[in-house]
Amino acid sequence: MALRFDGEVLHAIDQTELPWNERRLELRTAAEVAEAIRRLAIRGAPLIGVAAAYGVALELAHDPSPESLDRACELLRTARPTAVNLSAAVQRVRQAVLSGTAALDEARAIEAEEEAASAAIATYGADLLSAAGAVRILTHCNTGALAAPGRGTALAVIAELADRGALERAIATESRPLLQGARLTVYELARLGIPHELVVDSAAPGLIAAGAIDAVIVGCDRVAANGDVANKVGTYGLALAAHAAGIPFVVAGPTSTIDAATPTGADITIEERDPDEVRSAAGRVLTLPGTRTRNPAFDVTPAALVTALVTERGVVHPSNR
Amino acid sequence: MALRFDGEVLHAIDQTELPWNERRLELRTAAEVAEAIRRLAIRGAPLIGVAAAYGVALELAHDPSPESLDRACELLRTARPTAVNLSAAVQRVRQAVLSGTAALDEARAIEAEEEAASAAIATYGADLLSAAGAVRILTHCNTGALAAPGRGTALAVIAELADRGALERAIATESRPLLQGARLTVYELARLGIPHELVVDSAAPGLIAAGAIDAVIVGCDRVAANGDVANKVGTYGLALAAHAAGIPFVVAGPTSTIDAATPTGADITIEERDPDEVRSAAGRVLTLPGTRTRNPAFDVTPAALVTALVTERGVVHPSNR
Repeated sequence: MALRFDGEVLHAIDQTELPWNERRLELRTAAEVAEAIRRLAIRGAPLIGVAAAYGVALELAHDPSPESLDRACELLRTARPTAVNLSAAVQRVRQAVLSGTAALDEARAIEAEEEAASAAIATYGADLLSAAGAVRILTHCNTGALAAPGRGTALAVIAELADRGALERAIATESRPLLQGARLTVYELARLGIPHELVVDSAAPGLIAAGAIDAVIVGCDRVAANGDVANKVGTYGLALAAHAAGIPFVVAGPTSTIDAATPTGADITIEERDPDEVRSAAGRVLTLPGTRTRNPAFDVTPAALVTALVTERGVVHPSNR
Repeated sequence: MALRFDGEVLHAIDQTELPWNERRLELRTAAEVAEAIRRLAIRGAPLIGVAAAYGVALELAHDPSPESLDRACELLRTARPTAVNLSAAVQRVRQAVLSGTAALDEARAIEAEEEAASAAIATYGADLLSAAGAVRILTHCNTGALAAPGRGTALAVIAELADRGALERAIATESRPLLQGARLTVYELARLGIPHELVVDSAAPGLIAAGAIDAVIVGCDRVAANGDVANKVGTYGLALAAHAAGIPFVVAGPTSTIDAATPTGADITIEERDPDEVRSAAGRVLTLPGTRTRNPAFDVTPAALVTALVTERGVVHPSNR
């Protein structure tokens, strides 16, 4: 849905313009792919890994020199800092090329693996949540078919529960500043015909405390070796509220988001983005011009608050609760 | 700043249009005052109490009959359900009139009391926070001169700390859906020349966990007899994060917001507002039309998470921590 490689061009939907315009991008160079990742036209930890892999392949189709490989890899690896999938996918394609495999074959392999991971995550996650009797499930940001190959991660779990008739409704947080919940998750849920409600981010903790939510499920951009989770800013507050209410707080993501080289959440680089994202919403200015901001794109949820981490290999329980 | 009665007309600034337009309203009837309260042109728990008191006086100036008194009181009391100041102020003016006091005199007395309360709260709160060594202080929603007579409540404490040279900076949450932080608190802080930063609501817990905030101070719309606090939606999540990080979570408000007749937070009516507030920001549509929402205007913070409640009579410690 979000990415398609036709043999020559990487087609993507420009996610910055959803749900209003379904504008298609045709990306032909590593620089174009990197720019699309940087400005969030292509986003979601698994998806940017796949896009970057195709980006390397696109560049090598023009210029297969070692210098071109290095340049493309550097450009794509540094497009965003937090998701480990991006650097891991670039590194993997680079190694493959140096070992004689075509970049395109490796990119296709990564995509196929992520798609299979999505399907497995959906099954494991839906098993877990339906066993817990959770039918009103809150999710944050966008983790569906726009964020990962296949049906996504956390939103794939929700879609699988809906397929099984085991979902009452999804509750989507709007996910300021870039509104991936209001713009993208609502768009996906509407297309899938899944009953849903939208809330402002800060309403979620109170709704959880009031008993209106049975479980929270989110994706992840990087999981540290100790189980700490970096994910979309706001995730930590949801985890605190779920913990206080005693409901499951579930993180869903492929093992490609687990970074054994990062010991704890404190070692994860948190991307600080453009102040104008905070000063405006969907292009409308919200405050006085020039207002100083803090705009961390992610926060870190300690492993102790994570009830379950659902990967394509199964479920682990970082908090042992 | 936000309200002025000139003997015949209640002048107000239309807070829905700040910070872009400083549009003045001239209110001449109880119905006009009630409508301004309902659509948040006039807002803030202490301020809507004062406005409603003047609203009764305006109505009685036209028609001093008992029926007119009953009608005006009912109209104003029901304009919004959560803040206790509104119903308490209306009830107080009603009793005063029935006892032979002019409504206008009682309205002026309420305003003067709230202004004195603001000054006392500022002093007590600043003493408390400076003793705690807090110099980077996060606040939510708007609790300044636009929300209460005088300099407000929580924002008056921040202004007092700045006057004393004891503030490094204020951190304002934007306060979706109606952006009282981005629109009103930033506007007030800029006018006061107080260094400040704006963050999206969901960024606050992560910043607190990361050690970027020394204390949180908020206002309150109703405090139950057991110390539970109803305040702007999002307050509960901030309290959880402050508790987890071991920093002070301070609630500032006049004793007029304490409601001895409400035993606990569970007994407080939480206003559910128009879905379009969630579907848009400052007039810009953010999601698919017709998207279902939940839009609670407030949430409840349990007393156990409140480090200190600062009133004009001094400081109490609901959580005993």
